[in-house]
Amino acid sequence: MVEYIGIEGIRRIVGRMGPAAFMEGLAAEIEADYGRWNDFDKSARHAIHSPGGVIELMPTSDGRMYSFKYVNGHPRNTARGLLTVTAFGVLADVETGYPLLLSELTVTTALRTAAMSALAAKSMARTDSHVMALIGNGAQSDFQAIAFHHMLGIRQLRLYDLDSLATEKLARNLRTLNLPGMQVTCCRSAAEAVQGADIVTTLTADKRNAIVLTPGMVVPGMHINAVGGDSPGKTELHADILRRSDVRVVVEYEPQSRIEGEIQQMPASFAVTEFAEVLSGAAPGRASPAEVTIFDSVGFALEDYSALRYLHKLQLENAQSRQQIDLIPDIDNPKNLFGLLAHTQSGAARQNAWGPSQLAVTPG
Amino acid sequence: MVEYIGIEGIRRIVGRMGPAAFMEGLAAEIEADYGRWNDFDKSARHAIHSPGGVIELMPTSDGRMYSFKYVNGHPRNTARGLLTVTAFGVLADVETGYPLLLSELTVTTALRTAAMSALAAKSMARTDSHVMALIGNGAQSDFQAIAFHHMLGIRQLRLYDLDSLATEKLARNLRTLNLPGMQVTCCRSAAEAVQGADIVTTLTADKRNAIVLTPGMVVPGMHINAVGGDSPGKTELHADILRRSDVRVVVEYEPQSRIEGEIQQMPASFAVTEFAEVLSGAAPGRASPAEVTIFDSVGFALEDYSALRYLHKLQLENAQSRQQIDLIPDIDNPKNLFGLLAHTQSGAARQNAWGPSQLAVTPG
Repeated sequence: MVEYIGIEGIRRIVGRMGPAAFMEGLAAEIEADYGRWNDFDKSARHAIHSPGGVIELMPTSDGRMYSFKYVNGHPRNTARGLLTVTAFGVLADVETGYPLLLSELTVTTALRTAAMSALAAKSMARTDSHVMALIGNGAQSDFQAIAFHHMLGIRQLRLYDLDSLATEKLARNLRTLNLPGMQVTCCRSAAEAVQGADIVTTLTADKRNAIVLTPGMVVPGMHINAVGGDSPGKTELHADILRRSDVRVVVEYEPQSRIEGEIQQMPASFAVTEFAEVLSGAAPGRASPAEVTIFDSVGFALEDYSALRYLHKLQLENAQSRQQIDLIPDIDNPKNLFGLLAHTQSGAARQNAWGPSQLAVTPG
Repeated sequence: MVEYIGIEGIRRIVGRMGPAAFMEGLAAEIEADYGRWNDFDKSARHAIHSPGGVIELMPTSDGRMYSFKYVNGHPRNTARGLLTVTAFGVLADVETGYPLLLSELTVTTALRTAAMSALAAKSMARTDSHVMALIGNGAQSDFQAIAFHHMLGIRQLRLYDLDSLATEKLARNLRTLNLPGMQVTCCRSAAEAVQGADIVTTLTADKRNAIVLTPGMVVPGMHINAVGGDSPGKTELHADILRRSDVRVVVEYEPQSRIEGEIQQMPASFAVTEFAEVLSGAAPGRASPAEVTIFDSVGFALEDYSALRYLHKLQLENAQSRQQIDLIPDIDNPKNLFGLLAHTQSGAARQNAWGPSQLAVTPG
């Protein structure tokens, strides 16, 4: 049997801890895993693009555990009442190749993306950051708000979305959440939202080279958490922002980000820092209070590995409420896979399929 | 909700039809899909190797449906009572990116591999073939025996395995199956097994360059169904068999087979035919009764696509007994993913996580 976490399961796990504590714990797992960056087998994800979107597989392994995530991105889905991004993933044991856990990752991806954003911002944003602009108020925005409140001390949120209903939804959820000391402002434009922001988080979903931030909106000392641009032809920042002389760009895994990140707009020689270098101290996340720092986030397989390991641990800690599925056979003789079917043959099916015959088994 | 076929589900589906009819139906689906070869997005599978084995992802799409399979290969697993190969896969809708079906593929891979072998043999083996050697009598062998009996008219099976218990298991299952007209001989060596064989199927699992067949065992007119060699460093045929002047080698997808198949032993210039060319009539599967034909099978993603589509159809036809799982959220407002969690917050969890606060929502 394989451990299973579906939508009911993730609701139960996150409901028990609260999302802020869940994301803080997950950020610690991600930090620990990025701390042993060289242990991981890394590759750019496998993507199949279609006019409506993209379907991707994101595998990785540290030699002990293996994980992959299936994730789609279909911006037009919301118009028909479906999610832009859905995801699920598997954690497996490298020694045997057996899957250990199948888990939903739609909700979890939102949680891990916000946890990763907050973790990066802790090394990149100015320590006196209190005001964050949130541009794009869709499915991921609530999670970013909670993570930055809890882990960065953000106390003012400035919201903007082309779809004012999305902004209303986020404002309503934030009212219900009642985050201590949080002030929320709904803005009429991206330019208004970034006014006075220490951190700007962009979370838009349009599958094109959009310009959510123009050079004039960016001021010295700002940290940009650029989350929405994450596949070829899908970016959010005007290229001139990347060309500033005072800019520092941190990515997760350079080969993948060159294809999918904001830096796809720049030549291959454009300098970037990998987040693992920041964590190890090999490079600063921010060199001065006046620098403009950009976390060019596209989401890397290691973060899903961390999330699946974390979920597996939480699942096993609560044995009484956990679910399992019969995804893999459990048989006495592994060379007798067919025996699994033979035992279920109904008489009728057996007769139809095979009928009577003369069989002679002759030792050679 | 996502359709789910676990071990219980596949037992029910195959039990209802019988394995022979299941494989014949599946072979027809595979044939139809290979018939529109150019519709498919093709790539060599993604593999992560470890000392104990390999874990692979095999994605493909025809622009309407997307599928992938997770499959491991761990030859030492049987020594600890585990299967060498386990697998599962997903069928998804390209238009929305939503998964439609999650299915076990351990049993199904054995069924589809045998269906594919029999389908290839129908265009490659001599039409008067009645005797087959089965070398390697592990988990996949029973399925090959049934498929070649049903689809090729094989009436004599000559079994050999280094592990005589595996051969005994296969002979016992064949006795129970009672395939009409089938005669089974257990042999003491591979050389003995191939005596008089029209078709030789090799199904060994050892992860190394093994030599299951030597040049002296191969006679004009023989068809070799080489199934066991399927990853770098894992082959079954002596290279001199491939070097025969009268040999014709058919592969599934050339770029993948160059890496994983028997032909990994040959230079890149070594001539092979893709199975789709045989189906379309662009190349013969066999040009003369005296040719030695080799189906250098490694398993291609298209075959799993066919299997998942076939299973999905069979699942929907039997609505009353089908299972579903909550792998993907079903929510009213796709921009309010967080609402899914908020509704489950217990009062205690909410208070712990957030406590009381002053929240002001200000329209900008």
